[in-house]
Amino acid sequence: MLRAAVVGGSGYIGGELLRLLLCHPRVEVTAVTSERLAGRRADGPHPNLRGLTELRFAPLADLGRCDVVFVARAHTETMQIMPRLAALADQVVDLSADFRLADPRVYAEYYGVTHTAPEMLPSFVPGLPELYRERLRAADRVSVPGCMATAAILALHPLAAAGLITGDVTVDARTGSSGSGSSAGPANLHAERSGAMRVFAPLRHRHEVEISQATGCPVRMTATGVEAVRGVQVLCRARLVDGPGEGDVRAAYRERYRDEPFVRVVAHRRGLHRLPEPKILSGANLCDVGFAVAEESRTVLAVSALDNLVKGGAGNAVQCLNLRMDWPERLGLEFPGLHPN
Amino acid sequence: MLRAAVVGGSGYIGGELLRLLLCHPRVEVTAVTSERLAGRRADGPHPNLRGLTELRFAPLADLGRCDVVFVARAHTETMQIMPRLAALADQVVDLSADFRLADPRVYAEYYGVTHTAPEMLPSFVPGLPELYRERLRAADRVSVPGCMATAAILALHPLAAAGLITGDVTVDARTGSSGSGSSAGPANLHAERSGAMRVFAPLRHRHEVEISQATGCPVRMTATGVEAVRGVQVLCRARLVDGPGEGDVRAAYRERYRDEPFVRVVAHRRGLHRLPEPKILSGANLCDVGFAVAEESRTVLAVSALDNLVKGGAGNAVQCLNLRMDWPERLGLEFPGLHPN
Amino acid sequence: MLRAAVVGGSGYIGGELLRLLLCHPRVEVTAVTSERLAGRRADGPHPNLRGLTELRFAPLADLGRCDVVFVARAHTETMQIMPRLAALADQVVDLSADFRLADPRVYAEYYGVTHTAPEMLPSFVPGLPELYRERLRAADRVSVPGCMATAAILALHPLAAAGLITGDVTVDARTGSSGSGSSAGPANLHAERSGAMRVFAPLRHRHEVEISQATGCPVRMTATGVEAVRGVQVLCRARLVDGPGEGDVRAAYRERYRDEPFVRVVAHRRGLHRLPEPKILSGANLCDVGFAVAEESRTVLAVSALDNLVKGGAGNAVQCLNLRMDWPERLGLEFPGLHPN
Amino acid sequence: MLRAAVVGGSGYIGGELLRLLLCHPRVEVTAVTSERLAGRRADGPHPNLRGLTELRFAPLADLGRCDVVFVARAHTETMQIMPRLAALADQVVDLSADFRLADPRVYAEYYGVTHTAPEMLPSFVPGLPELYRERLRAADRVSVPGCMATAAILALHPLAAAGLITGDVTVDARTGSSGSGSSAGPANLHAERSGAMRVFAPLRHRHEVEISQATGCPVRMTATGVEAVRGVQVLCRARLVDGPGEGDVRAAYRERYRDEPFVRVVAHRRGLHRLPEPKILSGANLCDVGFAVAEESRTVLAVSALDNLVKGGAGNAVQCLNLRMDWPERLGLEFPGLHPN
Repeated sequence: MLRAAVVGGSGYIGGELLRLLLCHPRVEVTAVTSERLAGRRADGPHPNLRGLTELRFAPLADLGRCDVVFVARAHTETMQIMPRLAALADQVVDLSADFRLADPRVYAEYYGVTHTAPEMLPSFVPGLPELYRERLRAADRVSVPGCMATAAILALHPLAAAGLITGDVTVDARTGSSGSGSSAGPANLHAERSGAMRVFAPLRHRHEVEISQATGCPVRMTATGVEAVRGVQVLCRARLVDGPGEGDVRAAYRERYRDEPFVRVVAHRRGLHRLPEPKILSGANLCDVGFAVAEESRTVLAVSALDNLVKGGAGNAVQCLNLRMDWPERLGLEFPGLHPN
Repeated sequence: MLRAAVVGGSGYIGGELLRLLLCHPRVEVTAVTSERLAGRRADGPHPNLRGLTELRFAPLADLGRCDVVFVARAHTETMQIMPRLAALADQVVDLSADFRLADPRVYAEYYGVTHTAPEMLPSFVPGLPELYRERLRAADRVSVPGCMATAAILALHPLAAAGLITGDVTVDARTGSSGSGSSAGPANLHAERSGAMRVFAPLRHRHEVEISQATGCPVRMTATGVEAVRGVQVLCRARLVDGPGEGDVRAAYRERYRDEPFVRVVAHRRGLHRLPEPKILSGANLCDVGFAVAEESRTVLAVSALDNLVKGGAGNAVQCLNLRMDWPERLGLEFPGLHPN
Repeated sequence: MLRAAVVGGSGYIGGELLRLLLCHPRVEVTAVTSERLAGRRADGPHPNLRGLTELRFAPLADLGRCDVVFVARAHTETMQIMPRLAALADQVVDLSADFRLADPRVYAEYYGVTHTAPEMLPSFVPGLPELYRERLRAADRVSVPGCMATAAILALHPLAAAGLITGDVTVDARTGSSGSGSSAGPANLHAERSGAMRVFAPLRHRHEVEISQATGCPVRMTATGVEAVRGVQVLCRARLVDGPGEGDVRAAYRERYRDEPFVRVVAHRRGLHRLPEPKILSGANLCDVGFAVAEESRTVLAVSALDNLVKGGAGNAVQCLNLRMDWPERLGLEFPGLHPN
Repeated sequence: MLRAAVVGGSGYIGGELLRLLLCHPRVEVTAVTSERLAGRRADGPHPNLRGLTELRFAPLADLGRCDVVFVARAHTETMQIMPRLAALADQVVDLSADFRLADPRVYAEYYGVTHTAPEMLPSFVPGLPELYRERLRAADRVSVPGCMATAAILALHPLAAAGLITGDVTVDARTGSSGSGSSAGPANLHAERSGAMRVFAPLRHRHEVEISQATGCPVRMTATGVEAVRGVQVLCRARLVDGPGEGDVRAAYRERYRDEPFVRVVAHRRGLHRLPEPKILSGANLCDVGFAVAEESRTVLAVSALDNLVKGGAGNAVQCLNLRMDWPERLGLEFPGLHPN
């Protein structure tokens, strides 16, 4: 059994990592840290883990050696503890934003602080198997992308890679409330957030630079908080280059994702579920990707959906571990999602 | 115009008082207090008031004389400022729990602190027009009951007053999230509260003593937080005395509430909306009351529903003001609620 | 009292018309029609009307003369009965799509059927007071725009009229479930629709031609069904012409809507409620309009929100009536909306 | 591999059976029937199955032999096809109500029709492993109880079996919308059902007789539809016999469920999740059971929660299959549920 630790295990991403790792047949969770809840049972803040574990939170200072450490701490905090974590474990899988951007100047611009470990940035491989599978098989340091970035990258990548789109891409992202974390303030009170459609980032969002970095597309992003706990849906509007039509778009998606275990192409002409919807993906490590084409206006709308805590975070992280360990890529990630839900 | 002030105006009940008073044709809101938001615009935390008012919050220390003061502060805080408020205004309408219980020993038992103004208790009349209309016409001090208590009292009163029930009454109350207030902690995060059915008071709740006090029935209360923002629904199960049947129960309700402007008897044999439901009452100063009878088991189930911020709080308070001022009782309270909603 | 009838009164728009007209101080509702529910009480399908009316549905064949008739029937049905309705009442306010488009060929293209009353089209004035107030003061036939169209037109109009934008506008509309009507099929089952983000019109929607007709902008529209019952939110992304900046955009909105009773400009730099959100507008005849500008990319995002049954339908209709009758424009439309909700 | 068929596979229970059986390591789904959708892909109405199966619906008439047949058809229909199904498969697991009640006269009383296969009733074992595990190991015909019945039985059984309660039990059941099925009418439209608290069975519900049959307790049941898709929560209020206290109640639950793989005792003194809540159980084959005791009033409140499609239906059915086949009882049922969700 591989010995894994979760650093920052009291939040929602931490809980989801625990759920996946505790159910994973080849992993043993040896430690979970939380400063705030040190000494308390891990199934307190994560009641779905009752019966799965007797683990208690420990302070980070008590963390010993292990084979792999998953890091679910806030950005800016993470880069400060990373040198130490890298010394404790052979492999590090980080879910914060701190090691996602290759250029520390871009980090400073988007996150408003100077990067404190810029020398470590080149050692991290982006935790997105669909784009970086071969590198991930050998990667000891992995940085999992943001949930909305993952959705947008998987929607755009086949089009960009096939040269089917040109110019700016507008990304309209809708996200559920768990993305704000478990310690969020009044903005996330149920009475305020229930049924909301809150445009919290009208013309720019931090994830846009991740999308550009991965796809090469100039991106302009809008983000709206909607009623959902775990769902993310992204609509990407791009200009189709002259010549190709809907058939070429469909072929690009089919081709690109034919062998992907966790991406489904969903683009039907009719029916209730003809484009991707996050409602049926809760708990699943899936990203559904679809599209619509208006040839007369040379427009393509790429749509994708995922669970922000799974394929948009903890599940993606476990998929990267499976790759690195040369295990079956679906191991521990088989849950297909529920309908209705 | 009657000059009114709202003390504790930054919370949800405070906002609802402002909404009703700002739209009331014979009231002028002259001040609203908040320590935390002093100096800020009142339509900041209450965005539905945009365009209705230019008022800013002031600290309580700045409050001057007015005709009536509505108090929407936390319990235990309220009793400490009440002597001063009573000196500032001719009329006081309190929405906290501090002046609801006639006996300060019962208060100490249920709220865990000694009452600091027990000498003022006898001067308060319960703010429930359906039971105390004549006293309220002359009342300068009013204490509005709790939202679940109001619902249960209006459901039980006709049965109790007509001698139709006997023995213990079990009250199963379901309540939306706004009842927890605007500064609640992690328990009320959207991700935690959305779709919840949280039994937060399995066998005892503070409101039960208010219900007993008003109806004379021994009450055992269970309370569950459910998905709703404003709705309260209460199911009261009681034993029917020997003899009377469903017809007598119906007659008791019809008789009791025939002339009430804000209570509707809803007890149909079929249809989607055959018993009271809070969903259609948001914003309305209504309490819908209904019942079902099982004669073979001598059981009656009384069901009621209301908006916890309106008929369960601010609307009831304004109704009391209308009575005291000898204005039409419905003045400023005409909104009938929405369907669908 | 003006005698008003509602044709097609069993659906959600019909119910909302009844709510507003029954509470209107200068209107008497003399009839409400429904073929399906003829003979049944109007407060059956509309339980919020209990206590407000004893009206029963009648078949259309029984409808007699009245002063004004509001029509809430399905499109394509409406154009067939319109000649008869126009003979029964001095004024007709239609809420269907049948008289919104000036050109019957465009109607045929978007609705798939030949218009059966094209000769009546020129007699209808669009029921949007903010753009057509003077014409509406004299209009005996009014056609109220679609809910998403109203939101988008009010968001874009100040920019288009001031010449601040150029080129195609993309409209991203999110809409609640009541827009699908009260007789919708499996797609609108709660288990399917709850928490959904359903892109039902990825690249074209019928309302886009209404928006173009009113604003002169070429429009490309996407529509998504989200979790809400009554809310519509629209995001319009446009290119800012060279020269002007955020200040000019703000000035255009302020100027245009300064005196509008039912449009609020909501564009704050911070705070929970800094851009329009439909959650606080349920039941209110308001359209909140806001914007964000990214000068470096010459992009403006115009955001608007409304209740699809009120300012997006029945409320707009009553506002038109108030104008035509030379009554105060806010009469019967004063409800400001709820927060939280 | 065991060859399994699902009869009545287009509904929500049918879809859940398919999800569990398609992911089960020792089962092969060889057929799924639907009259309405015959010829269509099974992943059409069940989009979460995309990628898991290429199966298409067949009419029942085409069903051939298999090892086990799961039946998810409506009650009254099921008893008519049961003789034929019993001839087609060695084992039958029925999820309808038709074979739950031992006495056909009670069936006629609660379901309003005469039972057409009363001779088959004695051959069915109730599909509730916690009460009937040994009989189920040998049972070729299994009848899975109703979702609310399962929840209530598991809540009450330890108390009843230990002789800790006496007299009538009142059961207050709250249920999500998927229990009404995928072809339900206007009552389940999103606009009507969203946020509802609909008391649809105020004093009697069909499941009460199942509860009495299994526990021996006289039961009076109330049922309310609340906002949830899959969740059921049941509150059972009973009178504690003289003598025992909270410690005895706790011991009875612990003792009874110590070795149960799918029942967790959740009865903490504090914390957000101190009593069972269905929100964290979606997709899991778990029933959480808890309690509160008021010794002074000799009252015990037993609370339980489950997912009505899993432990309340399809999951329970698969657990029975595992028992019958002498497979590990948890096989294919390991999903622990999500938090938040």
